[in-house]
Amino acid sequence: MKYLDDIRDVRFNLLEWLDLDAVLKSEAYQEVDRDQLGMVLDEALKVAKGSVAACNETGDRVGAQWENGKVRLPDGFAGAFQDLASGGWISATMNPEFGGMGLPESVGTGISEFLMGANTALGLKLLLTRGAAHLIETFGSDELKAVYCEKMYTGEWTGTMCLTEAGAGSDLGALTTKAVKQADGTYLISGEKIFITSGDHELTPNIIHAVLARTPDAPAGPKGLSLFVVPKVRVNADGSLGAPNDVACAGIEHKLGIHGSPTCSLVFGTNDGSQGFLLGQEGQGLAHMFQMMNAARYEVGVQGLGNASAAHQAALAYAKERLQGRAPSAGKGAGQSLIIEHPDVRRMLLMQSAYVQAMRALVTYTAWCMDMAHVSTGEERDRWQGLVELFTPVSKAWCSDWGFRVTEWALQTFGGYGYTMEYPAEQYLRDCKIASIYEGTNGIQALDLVGRKFRMQDGRPVKALMGLVGATVKSLAADPVLGPSARQLGDAAKALGAVLQEIPARENAALLLGLNAVPLLDMVGHVVAGHLLLQQAALAQGKLAALLQERSVDAGNPAAVRALLAESREAAFYQNKVQTAIHFAHRGLPLVAAQAVALQAGETAPMEAMF
Amino acid sequence: MKYLDDIRDVRFNLLEWLDLDAVLKSEAYQEVDRDQLGMVLDEALKVAKGSVAACNETGDRVGAQWENGKVRLPDGFAGAFQDLASGGWISATMNPEFGGMGLPESVGTGISEFLMGANTALGLKLLLTRGAAHLIETFGSDELKAVYCEKMYTGEWTGTMCLTEAGAGSDLGALTTKAVKQADGTYLISGEKIFITSGDHELTPNIIHAVLARTPDAPAGPKGLSLFVVPKVRVNADGSLGAPNDVACAGIEHKLGIHGSPTCSLVFGTNDGSQGFLLGQEGQGLAHMFQMMNAARYEVGVQGLGNASAAHQAALAYAKERLQGRAPSAGKGAGQSLIIEHPDVRRMLLMQSAYVQAMRALVTYTAWCMDMAHVSTGEERDRWQGLVELFTPVSKAWCSDWGFRVTEWALQTFGGYGYTMEYPAEQYLRDCKIASIYEGTNGIQALDLVGRKFRMQDGRPVKALMGLVGATVKSLAADPVLGPSARQLGDAAKALGAVLQEIPARENAALLLGLNAVPLLDMVGHVVAGHLLLQQAALAQGKLAALLQERSVDAGNPAAVRALLAESREAAFYQNKVQTAIHFAHRGLPLVAAQAVALQAGETAPMEAMF
Repeated sequence: MKYLDDIRDVRFNLLEWLDLDAVLKSEAYQEVDRDQLGMVLDEALKVAKGSVAACNETGDRVGAQWENGKVRLPDGFAGAFQDLASGGWISATMNPEFGGMGLPESVGTGISEFLMGANTALGLKLLLTRGAAHLIETFGSDELKAVYCEKMYTGEWTGTMCLTEAGAGSDLGALTTKAVKQADGTYLISGEKIFITSGDHELTPNIIHAVLARTPDAPAGPKGLSLFVVPKVRVNADGSLGAPNDVACAGIEHKLGIHGSPTCSLVFGTNDGSQGFLLGQEGQGLAHMFQMMNAARYEVGVQGLGNASAAHQAALAYAKERLQGRAPSAGKGAGQSLIIEHPDVRRMLLMQSAYVQAMRALVTYTAWCMDMAHVSTGEERDRWQGLVELFTPVSKAWCSDWGFRVTEWALQTFGGYGYTMEYPAEQYLRDCKIASIYEGTNGIQALDLVGRKFRMQDGRPVKALMGLVGATVKSLAADPVLGPSARQLGDAAKALGAVLQEIPARENAALLLGLNAVPLLDMVGHVVAGHLLLQQAALAQGKLAALLQERSVDAGNPAAVRALLAESREAAFYQNKVQTAIHFAHRGLPLVAAQAVALQAGETAPMEAMF
Repeated sequence: MKYLDDIRDVRFNLLEWLDLDAVLKSEAYQEVDRDQLGMVLDEALKVAKGSVAACNETGDRVGAQWENGKVRLPDGFAGAFQDLASGGWISATMNPEFGGMGLPESVGTGISEFLMGANTALGLKLLLTRGAAHLIETFGSDELKAVYCEKMYTGEWTGTMCLTEAGAGSDLGALTTKAVKQADGTYLISGEKIFITSGDHELTPNIIHAVLARTPDAPAGPKGLSLFVVPKVRVNADGSLGAPNDVACAGIEHKLGIHGSPTCSLVFGTNDGSQGFLLGQEGQGLAHMFQMMNAARYEVGVQGLGNASAAHQAALAYAKERLQGRAPSAGKGAGQSLIIEHPDVRRMLLMQSAYVQAMRALVTYTAWCMDMAHVSTGEERDRWQGLVELFTPVSKAWCSDWGFRVTEWALQTFGGYGYTMEYPAEQYLRDCKIASIYEGTNGIQALDLVGRKFRMQDGRPVKALMGLVGATVKSLAADPVLGPSARQLGDAAKALGAVLQEIPARENAALLLGLNAVPLLDMVGHVVAGHLLLQQAALAQGKLAALLQERSVDAGNPAAVRALLAESREAAFYQNKVQTAIHFAHRGLPLVAAQAVALQAGETAPMEAMF
């Protein structure tokens, strides 16, 4: 299956739009050469389009297989993983001290988009491996760091996160896996975990599990959880592999998609016990684990983007070669037109573009905020960090829900062929669906946003956001092309602002917020996305104007402009940035006021219904 | 896989809400006994829940197989089809003269919902068989009718519709299959058709294809098409089977869903020729075929409803047994709550209910309009027929798009389990997706609505609809419970009405209508659905009040009302009808004004974009 990218827009986000210099001037990134970032993206794309994409279809058709207690990955996965490991792509953003490339998160986002888009099932291994290693780097002893971090960042071993149990999915406080401290300071772990992504495979000789478990005298609920490193195979003092650590795979799930990613049931400590090492402090397990969970949530948003962009590009390519019907723009006697000439198909395609670009802007901006927090201190750091925490659940949920929607529109663009396995759209749709569920369902993300993120730092992050949006509206109000779109953004921001102000003051505020958490997250996602897309459109408009001037084309002469657009890929790119923002403003942003209706009315029918 | 129905709401639609007496009093239905209609529904549900549902999962997992040029259906399909045939369920609404039950279409809708919901792959065979037979009944000679109709209506033989070719999907005018008239008045058919649902199988000894083909001297385009009956096996004068008719199955598609339904490539007339019989007149093929296409389009809407309702009922059952987290309504020290107690889950479930009930109201009302047209004459007939034609594309597209959305929400309700094949949600989602594509993509439906149906009969059907909606708004404006919802309907109708009035007067009206056909269809769907749900809610409100009175419960005493609702399934049912309408009015109807924004603004960004 060919992976079709949109590197041009990734470059625009990173190298034209965001102020990357504000990040790179920091001592933390003194090793990073700005001029080489474009090449880094090119190289990442090369491996994505190469061995990674090459096994995506096999990965789906054959899937991971569980036989005799062992998990076999599809053909091609081992070689592709080796390419990723040797290229350093597992840990592009991680600490160079342990073998990472040390790139900013915003650059890592572009890389992740390519890898997730090219092969989600394989891409998941990367984020889990670096996430688990980063837990060890942050919370582990020096010995643990020395043993594990570099081996994981370089892909010699892989990692997992072990949270879910059969009776404890969204409700992590109900976890029952046990951890009993031994005389030597290690712990014996026993219990069963389910839904463990890449919980077992033979890709690497060891797999390092980050496990939430409960010590014997710990309190019930989330505060009784501690975090442990539990290797599949014990590691000797010299770093060589020792005996198996009593971690067994009891089976894998049969799923709608991501078939190449084995979703495992793991049983710890059935026999002689699984040795585990405490990370951080007892009782702080969930708090520590949130480092990995937040990174994973953010990356699931990137998955939504990656699936959506790949599906959209495939639909776009198909629309440019499939003949069907005669478009209104074709002459009377003309034969069949390319379907991209049909207005309804163009609408479907631009809607896909608009949401894909919105997602890309959102996740890249969020990553840039991470970078800014990383290079800042004090109050400034808190300000960036506040935005990161506000945007994390939004990126995860908004990009997974709308990413799925984009894959659906892409499939529809193919007509009947889209429903067949001959074309890639149906796999993107199936692979994408998981993103709204794992790493905390989108309902959980929404409750996090409404219950925690709106209120953190006395509400400063959300106020800061509304301030940024207001500034965009104001700055573009008089723009002849973007003014109407800016007014749409203003209307949307007003509807959201009114709800944010009024609802908490109502008598049944807690119920209204809980009941409307998902719509509220969607409203925030649209407002942020609209704001970012309009910023991008303003920049693109300027760049297009400069191109026109450079080529001595009269901007007031539509035919001349049209001719340049037809001939110059760069001009067409900027033109499309403007059009996607306009489209999103008129088709996406009105959903904000629409969703405010039920909140304003205080509609609570779901609580009155007797199911 | 268990099929969970919602027969209570089907009964409400048919036996409480719609004026079925207005249909049944006609001579055409003098054989139909109103009192037995409830039993008919019960019987249909019994077979749906029995052998039909029993092979739905196998049908998906094993799928139809193509081996050595033959198609093998999954285990269980033959027995279930036999049950459907012997029960008369293939032709519940068809002409008793040829073995049908002669029931009204509105009753047939309930039956179809059960069968499509229980097993879409199998259900499709029914609609195609009766559709093809009905073409013969309407346009065939007496000989053809005598040979084919009864055998098809009773399931001795099955039927197909053969339209699509590799280069002609949405663009039927591009069909190239040939039909050459022979001296004996028959035709020799040759060509290749693709995407033919149930084009081949061994369920019945013969398969009767309704084929669009082109005579040698016919004009290019749709006007050159004629319609033919082409049996798989030739039929002797005495009705016995003769030689094979040179129709070969060259393969089946591998698809996202409906795996039990073989989607065949058929090759006609490779060797000695496929004998075909003209239906109706040469050159009128497409016009004749529209009888079957319209019926099929409507039934695809019922498929969307059937998949959505089944998925929703499964999610509802799961939410009533899955413990997770502690709901806000539970006491401080309480253990885990059923997930149905969580407000966000209740919102997801009521949203599913609301759209399912909206779809059911829409398709059942449409079928009732068919019945009213059938029993009327002159202008009254035209009025009902106008509504049927207006609602046909809306039923097809709106119910398939929102049906898919409901299956997505249902899957989400299951959390991680929803993504696994252990639970039925993912199959419903996959099976449902085809509905937005086949029988004319939803884009084609929207162009039919906007280009043809809005303008037919000088626009009377759409004006009649807006009048009906206005009457509902007016009648409920002062209702203390439903008044706010009626105002939402009023706002939605106003937004739609303004667009319908203003856009055709614009200079670029044709472009705006083409570009916005899909959003316009969605707006119409929401307005009609909101109108019907509010009508139902008003009725339910009255029935609930009567129940309260009957049980001597003081309607002003919330605790007493609550107690009755908890105890009486009937009271709870009516309560929910009211709440779903309120929910839909506040969460669904605002999408109408939101979609009017781009139209009012005349946004044409898709035409400006350079892809």
